[in-house]
Amino acid sequence: MGRVTARRRVLRISPSGRTSRADTLAAEEPLEVRVAGRPLSVTMRTPGHDFDLAAGFLVSEGVVSAADEVSAITYCAGATNDGSNTYNVLDVRLSPGVDLPEFSLDRNVYMSSSCGVCGKASLDAVRTEARWSVREDPLTLDPAVLSELPGTLRAAQRVFDRTGGLHAAGLFTVDGELRCLREDVGRHNAVDKVIGWALRSGMLPLRSSILLVSGRASFELVQKAVMAGIPALAAVSAPSSLAADLAEETGLTLIGFLRGDTMNVYTGTHRLTPHPAASAC
Amino acid sequence: MGRVTARRRVLRISPSGRTSRADTLAAEEPLEVRVAGRPLSVTMRTPGHDFDLAAGFLVSEGVVSAADEVSAITYCAGATNDGSNTYNVLDVRLSPGVDLPEFSLDRNVYMSSSCGVCGKASLDAVRTEARWSVREDPLTLDPAVLSELPGTLRAAQRVFDRTGGLHAAGLFTVDGELRCLREDVGRHNAVDKVIGWALRSGMLPLRSSILLVSGRASFELVQKAVMAGIPALAAVSAPSSLAADLAEETGLTLIGFLRGDTMNVYTGTHRLTPHPAASAC
Repeated sequence: MGRVTARRRVLRISPSGRTSRADTLAAEEPLEVRVAGRPLSVTMRTPGHDFDLAAGFLVSEGVVSAADEVSAITYCAGATNDGSNTYNVLDVRLSPGVDLPEFSLDRNVYMSSSCGVCGKASLDAVRTEARWSVREDPLTLDPAVLSELPGTLRAAQRVFDRTGGLHAAGLFTVDGELRCLREDVGRHNAVDKVIGWALRSGMLPLRSSILLVSGRASFELVQKAVMAGIPALAAVSAPSSLAADLAEETGLTLIGFLRGDTMNVYTGTHRLTPHPAASAC
Repeated sequence: MGRVTARRRVLRISPSGRTSRADTLAAEEPLEVRVAGRPLSVTMRTPGHDFDLAAGFLVSEGVVSAADEVSAITYCAGATNDGSNTYNVLDVRLSPGVDLPEFSLDRNVYMSSSCGVCGKASLDAVRTEARWSVREDPLTLDPAVLSELPGTLRAAQRVFDRTGGLHAAGLFTVDGELRCLREDVGRHNAVDKVIGWALRSGMLPLRSSILLVSGRASFELVQKAVMAGIPALAAVSAPSSLAADLAEETGLTLIGFLRGDTMNVYTGTHRLTPHPAASAC
């Protein structure tokens, strides 16, 4: 889709002078997700894989967990006053028997008003909503395989190459094979696109898989991994305190600062393969 | 405040072996902002400067634009069922005559339902809501000064030094003096904290100032700058297409990839000082 990037003139300033040249930017556009015709959320995203984004968002929010719970996703024609299609408004039809999400109140506000706002309440909410447990997943992680993942992800990031401005999320097998890569101006969107792709492919829960994100690991990213049944989340940068707390609570292995052959394992260290005997050097 | 960071044991894996050691993580906790006792939003943020965050959020949303429009900000005692204070729920009291924000519908959804969801509609909304114009701001930008800003910001980032996991936003004078630095797990929060500090200090609009962010420049960050009357936004990484579009529409100077003495100026290039005559080399 041509809308993934946009061209623009830019003034480049460097010690060798000033030059006007064409530059490629990562596209950002709003996407409104409707369910049964009613607006649920608006997110700023990079156009492309929009159906995956909507589906993954609904998985992360606990609305659906299997492909057959979504009966159809369509772009809304006539989404603007003049009747044209912006391709920025989606409608999701749920299958009979699937509960509609709460529309009347923001989900977070709803949650907080009943139980108080604190990290503990946030952890409890995810534990209550998750459809699967990742704690018992028998995945074993080889640090040698893990160390290859960022390079594999980066090599596959075609839009980043042109713009330098996109986050990426990649789903890997235990052997380090990249199953799905999605890029977006928003980290959360990139992860939702991966999870939505998996839902629509009938692959949930994503047992014994590894999710790698290009930036930091926040609470919400751990939440999304858990909601999709992913037992290991790796990040190139730092996790937050609540991300580590949620990983610990749910039994997810959380890896941060995955750079070259060094990494920090914050939780779920039992999944690491035994350390090979150190050879004399 | 001790809650800005959290300590945790981590397994460090490197070519020289595996070691268990203490690590410092950036704290992440939810903050619920209420206005006149009614919940308006919940955001995941790093605790600290919460009043600034709430005030800046209300500036960004177009609710207030002067210090005297906020009569009080307080932590809600008894925010949880057991009556304890989480320090994660704030109530903002607006002064008489200040319109309450829309509570019944998500602001973005409200916007979209009336005018369709597209980049154009997003730009129009900001143009309608902005209290000040940044287009006529006489700020002039010296590339030599700009090139110093990231180093100044980085040197002042005390929490990042310990965690490697925080975004930063810094407000600078035209001469490169750092007026206010805020760090947060969320980029938007760091910017809201700076703007809220300025509101509460009676400094809005922030004419002839420069806002620097440690990451990328999204549409929302340009929006926040414009709502605070800031005429120049600089980012260490890439801007998005819609960020550049909004900067162009509003007359803000947008600088990306500000690294060392190189940078890309996407909009508002007229504010750059004339290029010194190239000397023979």
